[in-house]
Amino acid sequence: MTIEVKASPRERLLEATASLTYRGGAHIGVEALCKAAGVSKKSMYQLFDSKDELLAASLERSSSAYVAALLPAADDGRPPRERILHAFEQVEVQAGAAEFHGCQYLAVQIELKDRSHPGSRVAHRVKEDLTAFFRAEAAKGGAGDPDLLARQLSLVFDGANARAGIRADNLAGLVCPTVATLLDTAGLR
Amino acid sequence: MTIEVKASPRERLLEATASLTYRGGAHIGVEALCKAAGVSKKSMYQLFDSKDELLAASLERSSSAYVAALLPAADDGRPPRERILHAFEQVEVQAGAAEFHGCQYLAVQIELKDRSHPGSRVAHRVKEDLTAFFRAEAAKGGAGDPDLLARQLSLVFDGANARAGIRADNLAGLVCPTVATLLDTAGLR
Repeated sequence: MTIEVKASPRERLLEATASLTYRGGAHIGVEALCKAAGVSKKSMYQLFDSKDELLAASLERSSSAYVAALLPAADDGRPPRERILHAFEQVEVQAGAAEFHGCQYLAVQIELKDRSHPGSRVAHRVKEDLTAFFRAEAAKGGAGDPDLLARQLSLVFDGANARAGIRADNLAGLVCPTVATLLDTAGLR
Repeated sequence: MTIEVKASPRERLLEATASLTYRGGAHIGVEALCKAAGVSKKSMYQLFDSKDELLAASLERSSSAYVAALLPAADDGRPPRERILHAFEQVEVQAGAAEFHGCQYLAVQIELKDRSHPGSRVAHRVKEDLTAFFRAEAAKGGAGDPDLLARQLSLVFDGANARAGIRADNLAGLVCPTVATLLDTAGLR
């Protein structure tokens, strides 16, 4: 016997918001989100103070999966150089998917154009954590200037996501050699 | 005597669309655009087939100024390395402005998420021209792989615009050293 556990209205709203925002942008309307989730607007406003808060909660909810898909396991024992390259290899793989639109935490900030928006705040924090990962690995690997290297890697990371997301580049033969050059120059061998 | 020439409804619509889209995003409504331009919706639809076409025409119209603000004069006589760095120096200057939201031709493609949108097509072409500039300079400067270097520079260019546009980085001490590293590695001295 299979027991089907139907997702709660809250879960369905978070899932629909993540999915529709990624495919269509952060300005998608409340009606479309509620319709996709099969939840009434009244119920939505009982669960979330506003659409902005729903978007922020949805981005927050997806963040663990986002990080897990990109970063190596904390205890994988590989050297920092390989651990950094791992994240970029994942971006290259992700960019090959037909439905890839780049990093959702970059896109949502570009779309909202408002740093005080609850969704922008969540997205900003998730990306700061990624830069912090680069900085920590850069320091462990003996980079001459870990902060500069972390900023460079974040620059390449967002550039790669942006360009692959709009199909301006497929990243093949581009991202990992570029990152390797920056790691070499920083002394991370 | 000063003769004031009032901009035509067409010009006012193009200007309002460029300005409001840059500040608020590509999904801003026709009503807001017409109101800002002081043009009726009826007149707008007599001048443009659709809002999509208005956006495309607006992006097309801004492209000369965009290129002129970024690229060095065709005949400035400087070596390719300096001409490439010039473009990135401009981005660093632009990023210092309070109202900077990054490259409008990148943002609009990220926001529209549809390569077949007339606005995406214009934006894609403008950015391809920029990559072509990098490729031509890379070849003139004797880069080992001009195509790879052009892709790398485009990656850094879009990453810089994205990160400065969302205020994740101010680019100071970041973009030009990163570009210099890539130019060095490519043999463009």
